[in-house]
Amino acid sequence: MNSTIKHSVKVVAEHVRATMHGDGRVNVTGVSSIPMASPKDLVFVEDEKNLHLALESPAAAVIAGDFAEGTTASKPILISNQPRLAFARAAQFLFGSPKWEPGIHPSAVVHRSARVGKNAAVGEHVTIGEDVSIGDGTRIGAGCVIGSGVRLGQDCQLYANVTIYPGALLGDRVIVHAGAVLGSDGFGYVRDKETGRYEKFPQVGRLEIEDDVEIGANTTIDRGALEVTRIGRGTKIDNLVHIGHNCQIGEDVVIAAQTGFSGSIVVENNVVLGGQVGIGEHARICEGVMLGGQGGVLPKKILRGKGIAFWGTPAQPLREYLKQLAALARLAKK
Amino acid sequence: MNSTIKHSVKVVAEHVRATMHGDGRVNVTGVSSIPMASPKDLVFVEDEKNLHLALESPAAAVIAGDFAEGTTASKPILISNQPRLAFARAAQFLFGSPKWEPGIHPSAVVHRSARVGKNAAVGEHVTIGEDVSIGDGTRIGAGCVIGSGVRLGQDCQLYANVTIYPGALLGDRVIVHAGAVLGSDGFGYVRDKETGRYEKFPQVGRLEIEDDVEIGANTTIDRGALEVTRIGRGTKIDNLVHIGHNCQIGEDVVIAAQTGFSGSIVVENNVVLGGQVGIGEHARICEGVMLGGQGGVLPKKILRGKGIAFWGTPAQPLREYLKQLAALARLAKK
Amino acid sequence: MNSTIKHSVKVVAEHVRATMHGDGRVNVTGVSSIPMASPKDLVFVEDEKNLHLALESPAAAVIAGDFAEGTTASKPILISNQPRLAFARAAQFLFGSPKWEPGIHPSAVVHRSARVGKNAAVGEHVTIGEDVSIGDGTRIGAGCVIGSGVRLGQDCQLYANVTIYPGALLGDRVIVHAGAVLGSDGFGYVRDKETGRYEKFPQVGRLEIEDDVEIGANTTIDRGALEVTRIGRGTKIDNLVHIGHNCQIGEDVVIAAQTGFSGSIVVENNVVLGGQVGIGEHARICEGVMLGGQGGVLPKKILRGKGIAFWGTPAQPLREYLKQLAALARLAKK
Repeated sequence: MNSTIKHSVKVVAEHVRATMHGDGRVNVTGVSSIPMASPKDLVFVEDEKNLHLALESPAAAVIAGDFAEGTTASKPILISNQPRLAFARAAQFLFGSPKWEPGIHPSAVVHRSARVGKNAAVGEHVTIGEDVSIGDGTRIGAGCVIGSGVRLGQDCQLYANVTIYPGALLGDRVIVHAGAVLGSDGFGYVRDKETGRYEKFPQVGRLEIEDDVEIGANTTIDRGALEVTRIGRGTKIDNLVHIGHNCQIGEDVVIAAQTGFSGSIVVENNVVLGGQVGIGEHARICEGVMLGGQGGVLPKKILRGKGIAFWGTPAQPLREYLKQLAALARLAKK
Repeated sequence: MNSTIKHSVKVVAEHVRATMHGDGRVNVTGVSSIPMASPKDLVFVEDEKNLHLALESPAAAVIAGDFAEGTTASKPILISNQPRLAFARAAQFLFGSPKWEPGIHPSAVVHRSARVGKNAAVGEHVTIGEDVSIGDGTRIGAGCVIGSGVRLGQDCQLYANVTIYPGALLGDRVIVHAGAVLGSDGFGYVRDKETGRYEKFPQVGRLEIEDDVEIGANTTIDRGALEVTRIGRGTKIDNLVHIGHNCQIGEDVVIAAQTGFSGSIVVENNVVLGGQVGIGEHARICEGVMLGGQGGVLPKKILRGKGIAFWGTPAQPLREYLKQLAALARLAKK
Repeated sequence: MNSTIKHSVKVVAEHVRATMHGDGRVNVTGVSSIPMASPKDLVFVEDEKNLHLALESPAAAVIAGDFAEGTTASKPILISNQPRLAFARAAQFLFGSPKWEPGIHPSAVVHRSARVGKNAAVGEHVTIGEDVSIGDGTRIGAGCVIGSGVRLGQDCQLYANVTIYPGALLGDRVIVHAGAVLGSDGFGYVRDKETGRYEKFPQVGRLEIEDDVEIGANTTIDRGALEVTRIGRGTKIDNLVHIGHNCQIGEDVVIAAQTGFSGSIVVENNVVLGGQVGIGEHARICEGVMLGGQGGVLPKKILRGKGIAFWGTPAQPLREYLKQLAALARLAKK
């Protein structure tokens, strides 16, 4: 994949803090996997055993780990102790943000009380409510609907057809993919013992999303019932995830696709959750826990153990769970 | 959380049919949880042991159960035999519906044959097809697309970016959250034995949603193939739920997030389904059954037992299932 | 369900290549299930034992299998060796595509560089980006957002509020249901070992969708990270499915609702996946495998066996899995 931006590898190396080996004047315009590389591309290699593949590819230059020091090669090598990270940053540098033209598209409907920051862009058919505040450099994709009182920080990117309910607060550099719904009513009802009918419990709390969060396509995050739903700084959320009311999600949490949280769950920092995980209300997932795909956590349960992998429903330490699977397989063969 | 409406607690007590103890002239403008309460808030307490927390909080007044009778307190107490329900109704009374201005926004495209009721509101960038009928007091959020022949009852609330396919019928007071898709084609194909290719089985049935149903964000409900998909009165559906063609969902059913129904399933009244439940085609979930999160029901299976909790895949009575989990854990430790 | 089109059963029989028995001049305008049939409807029957129900119904005519040869009946019978398929084709013939008026709605915003084919239709509030190409006869529903460089083939149908990210390629006759998001960023990050923060791995690849694919409501398909995500010809995808970056989905694959694929998965041709299935990264599902609802496949796992049914997490041949369930049930009763 190639951008319209061209840089010498020397400039790229400086930007990503890699050490330049070889001819720094070589230009790159794109990044690639090794099998797909063209002569304008930068590639990367994390394992010494794959270094020769990178060097033999048509790529213009290679980002590699320390193992590549002293290698004699026909193409420039950028050495980094985190080659994958250096590659990611190089891509960011070469591609930057998708290009946008600042300003409000004439088809957008923006309430006169809304404040739109410098260099911000409001796309086609967008609707922006009363007292909304949009930070500098923030881009709102076509068809988004931003409810009254919402505040978006700086340099956010909302893709198309996102809906934000009134009152939600987003920090800086938040990315929201198409079709996501932020700040919807939580799922809370009270059953009238006399009639057997359900009536709505108040869903009048707030949603707060901190800096550098990314939210996947068609994901839904409910606002608090009476309190606040919070997504911590740097947390990354995949597509079609559901986060219920009053959840407190920590910082640098990773949540894979189709995982669901019912209400009032606490997820501490640095947790990693696989896809299709389900977590019951009032559960707590402690700092650094990892939980495999389709795992389930019962209501009120506390899952504890930094760096420990859990799996299954109800979630157990991976080793225990594998033992049970093996025991069951043996039993069935008897 | 505070509204712009102020009422004396005496008026609130009358509205929610609670008995007033103490000074009924005290005003409230909002509702709150006990820890977050401000002096303008109404709070509630269901357990006698928490009554003192409510009374010691800064809240203006407290809704409590019968256990609070005879309590001497520095603040007014509204006594109800269903305090949580009284609180929910008080919130509804103080906040009401989100405010809206009746009328059709100039950016909306409304087919000339459509009928829009009194006090109804059609938001920004809405599209309304031929022969659509919208009841009095119904509000259509920005970006919604309402297909031809759709009928919406009175006092419905559609949030932003909802899509309704042609021909769907919705009752009164139906709430549809942002991004939901109602009346889409069911998933039905016929494989041609000669070519191995799939061809579309006709998906020309209807979707009917009865009064007082609430539908969560980004939920999808397919219309019938040849017959009707029906959602019964008062049923509450959370976010990202999928309901396939020809399903018959009863009244006062509760369906938590990410649950999925394949085709032609019958769910009787008063069923409660946890999140991420999956139900196979032609299954029947009988009156009053409860099924825990991530549970699975096989095609054609009948799940029976009013008030009985089921769990697991395939779903079993909770007691059986817990016994199996325990037996397996013991076995693995041998 | 009735269309506005009327045909004699003789014409229908010719269209669906069935053999006409009885009076071919009888007219039909719709299709129906047997219990709902009206005198204008065509019904079908696959089992000999239900033939009498079809013949006794008010339907105008019956499509039946070879078993109906020689039956004396008061209504015309169309005999086909694939009666369900013949019925599906008859419905397609009677209903055709939903009617549409070619042209670009005045409320749509179409970039001047975009090419819109003959007989194509661009709906209300649609946004079409730079260099988009839309094939002849393709219809874009209200509220869709089509990113720059997207190419749509001929006779595609996009329902309302679909979002397509820049650069995606769709073949001919692709159907995309409302709210689907195609070509969004994959879920890939690199953790900086020094700060512990996640940075975006480049998601600059492409999405390619081949001819005759159907994609359900609110489904999300990510584009490749550096390479291509591909959906093969004739594959049918239900609602709320998630397909991650770099997945290679084969031809004539059937994927039921809420199933999720993480990254770089290969699914070969003719695979059938139930609802809520979850598949880990770099797994491969080989030609003709069937996997039951809620099944799970571990990362890098290869599932092999044409026509073999798998179930459970981790997925096992159905027979093995049922044995394990039975053994566990026995164990718990001891």
